[in-house]
Amino acid sequence: MALEIERKFLVADDGWRRQAGPGQPMRQGYLAGGKQVSVRVRVAGTQAWLNVKQAQSLTVRREYEYPIPLADARELLAHACESGVVEKTRYRVPHAGHVWEVDVFHGDNEGLVVAEVELASEDQPFECPAWLGRDVSAHARYLNHALARHPYREWAGSED
Amino acid sequence: MALEIERKFLVADDGWRRQAGPGQPMRQGYLAGGKQVSVRVRVAGTQAWLNVKQAQSLTVRREYEYPIPLADARELLAHACESGVVEKTRYRVPHAGHVWEVDVFHGDNEGLVVAEVELASEDQPFECPAWLGRDVSAHARYLNHALARHPYREWAGSED
Repeated sequence: MALEIERKFLVADDGWRRQAGPGQPMRQGYLAGGKQVSVRVRVAGTQAWLNVKQAQSLTVRREYEYPIPLADARELLAHACESGVVEKTRYRVPHAGHVWEVDVFHGDNEGLVVAEVELASEDQPFECPAWLGRDVSAHARYLNHALARHPYREWAGSED
Repeated sequence: MALEIERKFLVADDGWRRQAGPGQPMRQGYLAGGKQVSVRVRVAGTQAWLNVKQAQSLTVRREYEYPIPLADARELLAHACESGVVEKTRYRVPHAGHVWEVDVFHGDNEGLVVAEVELASEDQPFECPAWLGRDVSAHARYLNHALARHPYREWAGSED
């Protein structure tokens, strides 16, 4: 088990692309996703994982991750996920001692770009890069399992 | 992925104990359990697994099983399961070319004993041992994830 302490932001502009590494396309779906526990299947390239997250709070989660065969993951994504599959490209962007993960969503979540930073503790300070937008850590609709059920394209203007 | 084709019965008497191997105590809980997909954490002795089952019908399920660290499984059982933990002792009972699994439940499911046989196909013939009771394959309440939510002790007399 790892404790995942994360903050999530929108991005204000494309400035992050100058520091970004190569993008990693990902497809993921949820076997279950509630307020407390989510069970995720993720495929990235030729690797796949089953992941369990249990929310402690909006920014802190216990996380368990296990590699699984790619063929299993593809079957689970095709047949066993409770709602849509989330497609995105993830970029790693180093900034001031942290590595930000910028997720550019596709498909039904096209248009959404979020940046996440993982922290060692909830009160660890971190520097916000200039391209960073609004903090959406407290907004459950930006959780990936929420995006699988209620994708960005379906959001009313007032929601984002 | 394995296809699990199973029939489940009550037991009429203790006759199965004469042929039974040693019992294996098991504790299991569910991170998610719906009509279609269940995600199970199981501990048996010093081993643990994460298991995903997707129902094709009442007797046929796609099954995916992955070993996980015992410490993870214990944490998941303690903190992440949506309802109670199911405790049982499993006995393997060979009979006429099949190995029956007899589950003797404990805790909130004390008093319930079921016997399962795994088949290679839905129409594979099998011999019913003399100690076998009623076929409950079609009764969803006997599914282990249902027993976690609504244990045997809470059943009204008319339900069993």
